[in-house]
Amino acid sequence: MSLRNPIIKEMKQRVYEANLALPQYGLVKLTWGNVSEIDRALGVIVIKPSGVKYEQMAPEQMVVTDLAGNPLEEDGMKPSSDLSTHVILYQAFEKINAIVHTHSTHSVMWAQAGRDLPAYGTTHADAFYGTIPCTRQLTEEEVKSAYERNTGQVIVETFQERQLAPTEVPGVFVYGHGPFTWGETPAKAVENSLILDEICLMAKENEKINPAMQSIPQYLLDKHYYRKHGMHAYYGQK
Amino acid sequence: MSLRNPIIKEMKQRVYEANLALPQYGLVKLTWGNVSEIDRALGVIVIKPSGVKYEQMAPEQMVVTDLAGNPLEEDGMKPSSDLSTHVILYQAFEKINAIVHTHSTHSVMWAQAGRDLPAYGTTHADAFYGTIPCTRQLTEEEVKSAYERNTGQVIVETFQERQLAPTEVPGVFVYGHGPFTWGETPAKAVENSLILDEICLMAKENEKINPAMQSIPQYLLDKHYYRKHGMHAYYGQK
Amino acid sequence: MSLRNPIIKEMKQRVYEANLALPQYGLVKLTWGNVSEIDRALGVIVIKPSGVKYEQMAPEQMVVTDLAGNPLEEDGMKPSSDLSTHVILYQAFEKINAIVHTHSTHSVMWAQAGRDLPAYGTTHADAFYGTIPCTRQLTEEEVKSAYERNTGQVIVETFQERQLAPTEVPGVFVYGHGPFTWGETPAKAVENSLILDEICLMAKENEKINPAMQSIPQYLLDKHYYRKHGMHAYYGQK
Amino acid sequence: MSLRNPIIKEMKQRVYEANLALPQYGLVKLTWGNVSEIDRALGVIVIKPSGVKYEQMAPEQMVVTDLAGNPLEEDGMKPSSDLSTHVILYQAFEKINAIVHTHSTHSVMWAQAGRDLPAYGTTHADAFYGTIPCTRQLTEEEVKSAYERNTGQVIVETFQERQLAPTEVPGVFVYGHGPFTWGETPAKAVENSLILDEICLMAKENEKINPAMQSIPQYLLDKHYYRKHGMHAYYGQK
Repeated sequence: MSLRNPIIKEMKQRVYEANLALPQYGLVKLTWGNVSEIDRALGVIVIKPSGVKYEQMAPEQMVVTDLAGNPLEEDGMKPSSDLSTHVILYQAFEKINAIVHTHSTHSVMWAQAGRDLPAYGTTHADAFYGTIPCTRQLTEEEVKSAYERNTGQVIVETFQERQLAPTEVPGVFVYGHGPFTWGETPAKAVENSLILDEICLMAKENEKINPAMQSIPQYLLDKHYYRKHGMHAYYGQK
Repeated sequence: MSLRNPIIKEMKQRVYEANLALPQYGLVKLTWGNVSEIDRALGVIVIKPSGVKYEQMAPEQMVVTDLAGNPLEEDGMKPSSDLSTHVILYQAFEKINAIVHTHSTHSVMWAQAGRDLPAYGTTHADAFYGTIPCTRQLTEEEVKSAYERNTGQVIVETFQERQLAPTEVPGVFVYGHGPFTWGETPAKAVENSLILDEICLMAKENEKINPAMQSIPQYLLDKHYYRKHGMHAYYGQK
Repeated sequence: MSLRNPIIKEMKQRVYEANLALPQYGLVKLTWGNVSEIDRALGVIVIKPSGVKYEQMAPEQMVVTDLAGNPLEEDGMKPSSDLSTHVILYQAFEKINAIVHTHSTHSVMWAQAGRDLPAYGTTHADAFYGTIPCTRQLTEEEVKSAYERNTGQVIVETFQERQLAPTEVPGVFVYGHGPFTWGETPAKAVENSLILDEICLMAKENEKINPAMQSIPQYLLDKHYYRKHGMHAYYGQK
Repeated sequence: MSLRNPIIKEMKQRVYEANLALPQYGLVKLTWGNVSEIDRALGVIVIKPSGVKYEQMAPEQMVVTDLAGNPLEEDGMKPSSDLSTHVILYQAFEKINAIVHTHSTHSVMWAQAGRDLPAYGTTHADAFYGTIPCTRQLTEEEVKSAYERNTGQVIVETFQERQLAPTEVPGVFVYGHGPFTWGETPAKAVENSLILDEICLMAKENEKINPAMQSIPQYLLDKHYYRKHGMHAYYGQK
């Protein structure tokens, strides 16, 4: 694999644009947040550099690593400190191609509260097939040793224990920290971050408007999710 | 009726502009939302194409259908997936000329909560003559067969059972889903969406500021509604 | 008095700019809101025309009336429907020169809740000397006959009964409706609207963060209010 | 020390830019807020002039004082009325170089509520090492005599009594008033204001989403704080 491969340049451009979309959508403040994309065939991950301001970022600065997260460019920048979490997720979730981490306001509220997000309406069902899980709290040992890898591991553990498909539930809350979302493309993963933040906002207010809130029925969840996903989808221009 | 009729071009322009107003007013994110207009004499409905991004939309792309919702242009785009709901509403509510559906944040909260919106102030009374209803939950059968038509039917049922005039209460919450509003023109229907979202926001906070909130008295509702509507209106430049 | 008096042109410009400031500050949506200015020596009031969109408004369109609210220009537009409220306030509150009415989100919440706003912090004290009152509900008769005048009367009654000085408490909530604020100039009256909305927002959240909220002590209210107002003010460049 | 020293010009530029960042970040309305910087070697403090509008401010107008807060320029403007608070903080907190005061919405809510802010998540831990304190209420005597100095004193007292390091907890709530933050540079102090407001917003909502909210465990606080601060930091490009 050559770093001059034009596919890498395209990945950098997509990852760059998806990172820029985060502040544009109001999903990150300062330098909080990162987007990555994987090309498994090529054996590369492209991710935002660590702590760089969005307004000063350039596409070339996106960091290229191998599938284990080792930087490949000699004079490249340091990758996002959350890279190891992305690496673990890409290893475990084979069908996802892009990952987003933000500190978006309403998603972080649910992560800090340590609560799963019930499907209270069709806006949720349009993008997430059911309850969005919150991980358990990491243990002291998990935090002290390989914290970022263990953040990935606890997400994987959560999806395994609950028997969730990452393609059907493209997001998670890490207890005390914040959300990760993913998707087929960087743009789609960012879109899932946006939707997650919006449904978190609506859900928290819903519990005040109606303290007896219930999830929508399974048949309505099915209808909305499959109206937009899978073989029988009929939303959009395809 | 010819599709070259200049009235259709004007309808497309109005529908296009009204659709664009939704993200400008902060009432939709991504591609969530659609506006349509009907011309009963001409026998056409014009509606937003399905899943198209607002920033890439053009007036010509607005989709023209007959009054049953069948597309009339050979190479036209696919209409919004909510078209069947619009069709049913146009059939039942003979005096409305335009319909808007959004997932605007505060209106969706009330829809998800499954609650009617009481008239807590004159901002509400200026545009909606009394309580804004929320439909019942659709049954499993209604969702599985002709979901979008049945969404329209449950709205019509709600207005019939409660004996409401669609011109006086130009909006509704669909349980678990979101709001529909309507009006004499696409612009007016969008305006009603904006007002609905604002009064939903204020109402939910009001119940916290004053847990004993009551609707405003009937005489104040009458005063404000009829100050702006009907023969004795005296607001504006007419 | 001649309508060609250059003072009137200046008043129109100030009233125009103050009206435009309302949507810029996020204090009004659509056409909800109006600003007026009085010149008692000249015997004129200048106010926003009724129901005109902010983006289409021009300074010349501001409406000139006499002190009883009768339009003076032959081909002028119709004044704001709230003009009679302004007229009553100008008659009773002799030291105020400008009035603003908005439907700003958080102020309307307090008006709809029918509650006075306690001085919970120094942001409040910097502009309002103590509790901001909410009027009683208007009676059916008051609403049915000369509603806008009676809205003014109930504000005046509130200030008289509570022995408040309009210059020290430059704003009020009208029960079920919304806020009125005032000041020495249109710009200052708008500023008071902005501050009122902000302290309404903070107060409602405060009662959730601390259910035992108390007003700030009198000595802190005095300090902040008189740091910015009166003979011993030392804030700003004077 | 000469006032023509180019370092002073640079300080003015930094203080000017940091002041402008406040409205850009949505942290101040009108003229509420001020930023200062100290150069202890040079013996000067540079601070925003009192009551000047942000859109009319120029770098030259920033006010230069000695370390006791006495203006040094003959024709300079009046310094911010909060200068005395800054002076006291610079005297007591020897390692801070810049101070920010705002009336940012969510921080003021906590100040008015008179509550400390617990560390409910890693967003907090990334910038503040643990609970952010709220001062006690100032006494009547403290308010009536040298109010602004005493505001500084009560902050210093709070940090001493709780044995907090100002470099580790770069912010405080003044009871009934609002937040002060600080940092190594004006830009960093503003950033801390932004973070403080965001974590105040999230914390207040968190207590509603989960009434049993707990602070994050000490080991997670340590991990996040020291990932970004101190000798073993590994966030960013250094």
